[in-house]
Amino acid sequence: MVEKITPMSEDFNEWYTDIIQQAQLADYSPVKGTMVIRPYGYSLWEGVQAYLDKKFKETGHENAYFPLFIPNSFIQKEAEHVEGFSPELATVTHAGGKELEEPLVVRPTSETIINHMFAKWIKSHRDLPMLVNQWANVVRWEMRTRLFLRTSEFLWQEGHTAHKTQEEATNEALQMLDIYAEFAENAAGVSVVKGIKSANERFAGAITTYSIEAMMKDKKALQAGTSHELGQNFSKAFEIQYSDENNELQHPFQTSWGVSTRLIGMIIMAHGDDKGLQLPPKLAPTQSVLIPIIPNEDSKSVVLETVNKLHEELCESYRMKIDDRDNISPGFKFNEWELKGVPLRIEIGPKDIEKNSVVFSRRDGVDGKNSISINEVSQKLKDNLDDIQSNLLETSKNFRKDNTIHVDSKAELIDTLNSTPGFVTCYWDENTSDEIEIKDLTKATLRCYLLENEGSAKAVNNESVEGKKAIFSKAY
Amino acid sequence: MVEKITPMSEDFNEWYTDIIQQAQLADYSPVKGTMVIRPYGYSLWEGVQAYLDKKFKETGHENAYFPLFIPNSFIQKEAEHVEGFSPELATVTHAGGKELEEPLVVRPTSETIINHMFAKWIKSHRDLPMLVNQWANVVRWEMRTRLFLRTSEFLWQEGHTAHKTQEEATNEALQMLDIYAEFAENAAGVSVVKGIKSANERFAGAITTYSIEAMMKDKKALQAGTSHELGQNFSKAFEIQYSDENNELQHPFQTSWGVSTRLIGMIIMAHGDDKGLQLPPKLAPTQSVLIPIIPNEDSKSVVLETVNKLHEELCESYRMKIDDRDNISPGFKFNEWELKGVPLRIEIGPKDIEKNSVVFSRRDGVDGKNSISINEVSQKLKDNLDDIQSNLLETSKNFRKDNTIHVDSKAELIDTLNSTPGFVTCYWDENTSDEIEIKDLTKATLRCYLLENEGSAKAVNNESVEGKKAIFSKAY
Repeated sequence: MVEKITPMSEDFNEWYTDIIQQAQLADYSPVKGTMVIRPYGYSLWEGVQAYLDKKFKETGHENAYFPLFIPNSFIQKEAEHVEGFSPELATVTHAGGKELEEPLVVRPTSETIINHMFAKWIKSHRDLPMLVNQWANVVRWEMRTRLFLRTSEFLWQEGHTAHKTQEEATNEALQMLDIYAEFAENAAGVSVVKGIKSANERFAGAITTYSIEAMMKDKKALQAGTSHELGQNFSKAFEIQYSDENNELQHPFQTSWGVSTRLIGMIIMAHGDDKGLQLPPKLAPTQSVLIPIIPNEDSKSVVLETVNKLHEELCESYRMKIDDRDNISPGFKFNEWELKGVPLRIEIGPKDIEKNSVVFSRRDGVDGKNSISINEVSQKLKDNLDDIQSNLLETSKNFRKDNTIHVDSKAELIDTLNSTPGFVTCYWDENTSDEIEIKDLTKATLRCYLLENEGSAKAVNNESVEGKKAIFSKAY
Repeated sequence: MVEKITPMSEDFNEWYTDIIQQAQLADYSPVKGTMVIRPYGYSLWEGVQAYLDKKFKETGHENAYFPLFIPNSFIQKEAEHVEGFSPELATVTHAGGKELEEPLVVRPTSETIINHMFAKWIKSHRDLPMLVNQWANVVRWEMRTRLFLRTSEFLWQEGHTAHKTQEEATNEALQMLDIYAEFAENAAGVSVVKGIKSANERFAGAITTYSIEAMMKDKKALQAGTSHELGQNFSKAFEIQYSDENNELQHPFQTSWGVSTRLIGMIIMAHGDDKGLQLPPKLAPTQSVLIPIIPNEDSKSVVLETVNKLHEELCESYRMKIDDRDNISPGFKFNEWELKGVPLRIEIGPKDIEKNSVVFSRRDGVDGKNSISINEVSQKLKDNLDDIQSNLLETSKNFRKDNTIHVDSKAELIDTLNSTPGFVTCYWDENTSDEIEIKDLTKATLRCYLLENEGSAKAVNNESVEGKKAIFSKAY
């Protein structure tokens, strides 16, 4: 049953949770802070996985699986890492009816255990690069949770690599950032900015953290993926050494990178509207739904026959569904499939059949109801899905541009962040205490320095130096 | 580097762990009882997943994801379930820097949490059947571990369904058993027996447990998959109720079913030999490896050119690799790919090129080295892979038949189990204390009653009644 969805303009957070629950993407679980991903939400995640996994493999990465439990002592080995994750750890103290000698941490991320294994596997320069990825669940204890965006357990992938040179590691980290950005834009239809995190927002243990940042419909930022250069921090802490071409022992340079089920939250908040979800055709579990319009019993068999025939023709090439439920009105079905974000609805009734046509209705509202000759359905379906996909990206890109303001002074930065939702850009001189000051005054954070060089100019927080162009914004 | 593999005949367990480590399928992890699945082993698991996931979806199941952590109170709700799993539970007592009010159990299986959610989702007969599957990690604390077969954490899938009638639930449980058997035989090339577990070996909380049982090369049994009818045990314990067509509240009938990374252990032990793994073509990550034979620098370019051209032609249809590593002899490469169980090796040297041919060498040894015209490679590759696949199954089936003995008395049953490795069948009258007596005297267990009816005869443990045909065997 479709219940009332809180309008986005009234309460964005309520709108978000209404959509998730009513579209049956996810549900709250009885364990505080955790969620259940329902089949519709999980099938979206399967689409994300399939797309990215292919890219990872094309770039030479292999999947593996490392243990869920990590000895507490491992987490302690890298100083920044332990500091970064300690407050969020969940710990197993009892197992098999006994108290454990050493408590086991439920992985918050797998750098430590993977690098312990890398130390065993990497001996020679011939073992490099080592390019491993893992699809897994991780646990970071959260007090304030939000479905898909912030839960104590979430699903993600984490790539971990080791290289001979720093340059190779930099290239790897940037390559994976590009794959994430390409996914966000070309598959999810969400425009993103590629950037570098400030020291304050960097991953615990990294020397550089790259991220992609997207703008949601409430004009807040969402960090959608991160890629880290770890330098030799972990290879030194875990004593990973290889003998190079001259038989000398070296520590490799490393990267790690990940995206999570948070991407589902991004898709909801970047495209959704008051009717519900709006899914990009490339990821939509159902790309098009066929709805038979049956005004009376006489027309039932001919309509269903036509619908079934069309489904048979199209279902090889497209992810299609027929909604032939009895006792449910077409209007109700329209609402439900709009709620579920299916990109294109095809209606077929006796009048359409007489005219040898069907009615297309796009979830993005373009073209309204559009009569299509039945012979052209396959081609027009393709064209429309392509068009919906690129429109989503275009809309997302324009929305971000329209809601980004550039400022030239610190006062203006603070003012704008307090008065106007959206991204605010300025030239900034890296400085953690200034950054914290901005956050205290505005609740906004430094999302990233733009990766693509936009020159330099006088920093708003230090007039005596040239700053780098940075984005500030409230964020998820 | 290929090190010495302990011969199977000398020490089967050593042989097994040698193979796993040297073929880089898996490795021991620093956390007792857990394992690391290395890329080669994980890619085998990906093959298993892809095959089964398709079958699950074709039969109407959808994937979902439920939380890793289960409130301790949930496990306590179903009496047999709590008894069955209590000794194996791992418990999180601290999280986010605090002691938890209620300890959380790391899921040993998800019946309890999933049925809690089913109670929320199932309201009407229109919500049934509910057909859900989950690919996940689970934890059952183990003291004596064996890679892939028995580890504290393992990967699996668990299906959970709810139905209106007992008959539907029975059909579902049997359908999934058939899917597992079909996978074992047609994909993994391992002959299995379908059966019903005795009360003593039944899943904790089930009314009937079906299993598939395979014979390993040491003639021990391996339970490769189970499918359970849960009756209304969980739907009553978790208060799942739906209103039927007459608006009366009913408890649904349920099933659950699962297979795990233990299937990798099955593939190793059913097909491997003293040279290493022997992988079924349908699941082999690499179906065929091309090895250039380069006796001198002069021939290098022409050989590599031919090899690359062939790879390009074949790699669309087959999972192919080229092994063109320098400074490694062909003989060494042959050993390594045999260790890794690649079904078919193709050698190409200058003499072969002169004759416009290549050399096929099958991992199963059939036909020895076989010269194949280069124009026929694609067709012959297909034919050989098909033949290897069916030979593996045939060999496995014959091996089991040749090592199964039927007995007609209890004394003979005990004698045979103590003297002769393999399966021993007899007619048996269900009786837990007799079953335990046999186990005490022979270390063998009642693997299953045959699902396919083979009539009845006087039970060996009770001459006054007709028994059902049962298999006893030592088992993993």
